[in-house]
Amino acid sequence: MASDPIRILQDLIRCPSVTPAEGGALAYLESVLTEAGFTVDRPVFTEAGTPDVENLFATIGSGAPHFVFAGHTDVVPPGDEAHWQHGPFSGEIADGMLYGRGAVDMKGGIAAFASAALDFLSEGGLKQGTISLLITGDEEGPSVNGTVKLLDWAAKKGHRFDAAIVGEPTNPQALGDAIKVGRRGSLSGTIIVQGRQGHVAYPHLAVNPIPQLTTLIRRLTAEALDAGSERFDASNLEFVGLSVDNKAWNVIPAEAKARFNIRFNDQWTRDTLEAWLISRLEEAARGAIEFELDLEPGGSESFLTHSETLIGTLSDAVERSTGRRPELSTSGGTSDARFIKDYCPVVEFGLVGQTMHQVDERVAVEDLVTLTAIYRCFLDRYFA
Amino acid sequence: MASDPIRILQDLIRCPSVTPAEGGALAYLESVLTEAGFTVDRPVFTEAGTPDVENLFATIGSGAPHFVFAGHTDVVPPGDEAHWQHGPFSGEIADGMLYGRGAVDMKGGIAAFASAALDFLSEGGLKQGTISLLITGDEEGPSVNGTVKLLDWAAKKGHRFDAAIVGEPTNPQALGDAIKVGRRGSLSGTIIVQGRQGHVAYPHLAVNPIPQLTTLIRRLTAEALDAGSERFDASNLEFVGLSVDNKAWNVIPAEAKARFNIRFNDQWTRDTLEAWLISRLEEAARGAIEFELDLEPGGSESFLTHSETLIGTLSDAVERSTGRRPELSTSGGTSDARFIKDYCPVVEFGLVGQTMHQVDERVAVEDLVTLTAIYRCFLDRYFA
Ligand SMILES: [Zn+2]
Ligand SMILES: [Zn+2]
Repeated sequence: MASDPIRILQDLIRCPSVTPAEGGALAYLESVLTEAGFTVDRPVFTEAGTPDVENLFATIGSGAPHFVFAGHTDVVPPGDEAHWQHGPFSGEIADGMLYGRGAVDMKGGIAAFASAALDFLSEGGLKQGTISLLITGDEEGPSVNGTVKLLDWAAKKGHRFDAAIVGEPTNPQALGDAIKVGRRGSLSGTIIVQGRQGHVAYPHLAVNPIPQLTTLIRRLTAEALDAGSERFDASNLEFVGLSVDNKAWNVIPAEAKARFNIRFNDQWTRDTLEAWLISRLEEAARGAIEFELDLEPGGSESFLTHSETLIGTLSDAVERSTGRRPELSTSGGTSDARFIKDYCPVVEFGLVGQTMHQVDERVAVEDLVTLTAIYRCFLDRYFA
Repeated sequence: MASDPIRILQDLIRCPSVTPAEGGALAYLESVLTEAGFTVDRPVFTEAGTPDVENLFATIGSGAPHFVFAGHTDVVPPGDEAHWQHGPFSGEIADGMLYGRGAVDMKGGIAAFASAALDFLSEGGLKQGTISLLITGDEEGPSVNGTVKLLDWAAKKGHRFDAAIVGEPTNPQALGDAIKVGRRGSLSGTIIVQGRQGHVAYPHLAVNPIPQLTTLIRRLTAEALDAGSERFDASNLEFVGLSVDNKAWNVIPAEAKARFNIRFNDQWTRDTLEAWLISRLEEAARGAIEFELDLEPGGSESFLTHSETLIGTLSDAVERSTGRRPELSTSGGTSDARFIKDYCPVVEFGLVGQTMHQVDERVAVEDLVTLTAIYRCFLDRYFA
């Protein structure tokens, strides 16, 4: 069976596609999809300061509705391979588990949706409309030469998408737990406090920026941003770094920095957060602390997908194969869905994420087969 | 005049003796002192992990009282020489100022006391007793292969000292301001807070050590250690560094560290301070913050010299040449006096410190001549 998801996943795992290496994974998908009648493009995107990245866009059919499966073949490094019970690029099966880097994040998702699409097509399911696969090799990396550029590239080719599913692992415990229908936004920044350098024996001639930075950190962690909203967890600020450029023990340093990241829900935007940060910092500084707030470029706004066609149809498909109605979740980190949401309604649904990015990453063979059935059921109903 | 302090200082400044380089400075002193009848030794001390350092011990006369002038020929680096109006190793004189690295800290002090001793000897002042010069090349560096070992070396040779003056710059504004009769102690340490690493999107699975460290820092800066004592400024704790080993924006780090230094007066010892630190940290942690207190080896206890012979005689000499009675101070940083105090009463008196360690370090020629006169007057009265 050409569309066996186990075989496809094993073949994909054996391609060592650690970001930004293509590792043969896209070439493999190209050959499988081309054979099934897809038109396949392999655009390479480049940007100064980042590695060139290969991508893949495969499409079949014509006109609306235009449905997209999206994902990434790149994987995070395996770390010390000696710690793996089964080689990270082996694709070995033992006790019902298929092992390897990417098994759940997310070569497994790709194997399932590719297999579902091939079966759907071979059984003549696509009477009207278009199915595309949008695959990048730059999701685990800087995400600069991947999905964001591939979407732009496809739009310029005239593609207009109606709905998308990203095959990232979304289930915390068991297949069917959760569909992700949105994501919190992300904003990173640095607080820089300027003191005045001096010798520790003459503190009256210096201004120590460290206690001052401490005052600002405490102000920002003193209150919750919000209590969450209907579809979203509470927004949350975490400090992720502290630094002072001083090796000496007898010098009061000139400057102290703290880095932070905020994950925020639909009650906030980057702009309202920036205003909140400045007002709290100014309140704590009372005009006596010389600070600067430096927000990182990039980041992302929160989003929530409302499409009943997409969410309802996928929820039905999940319930039919697992007996459980998935929670509609917005928790967790960012994914390429944050780029796709600017083009069409998008949700995420895939495998169980527990072993992702870990040693002995693995997927239950049964889950892989069930996920393929869910995607297939979705296609049947979506294109019905 | 063999004992012209201006000429000696110019010669010393022209030796580029940036720690740990000898730069010709000790060889120069050896030749000058040997010619005047001193017995000169040049012991080199070594220790794993630190540079070898040359030292000089010159002695003349015999028996008690045994008086010591102490100092260092090593200097801190000049930085960008282009910023100097006169070369840092030029010894140029302009508008009554003699320029160069070490002019006040403390080749100037050495030039003055060497010159004073040579004049005193050539005029037959030393009828009974001993004068020694104890000069190191490792005061601005780790201070491991310098004065501390030279004192031990001299003691093993049978030398018993009765009093010492260190020629470090002690005057804040004008020659005659202050004699240093003691020093606060110094204790350095690191507070390490252990959290639990995790992803910023899942803060409930992690423990962020940064706000916890902030809590501990605030506790230690919330109260003064003391209000000072009769002869000492208040003890003071300064944080000098913060560090977190994390480059990512989306990772809650496992560990956060803060480095601090305490300068403490005669109300404290290293042991009572350690107890104070632990009690305050435990109080702030409330059993909910996993922290470690790591005190640096070394440091020093505070000390206060009481010798009326030494302090009174030097104060009289200062008053006679400057018209002002010097303040008896214990402020400022540590010096090699902290080692000498274990062997004999010691005070510090030298030039005006304003330009020390700075670009265009310089001494007023008039001050250099006056300091020489003060040291000479001291010798006359001490050995009378
Ligand atoms: Zn992924
Ligand atoms: Zn010095």
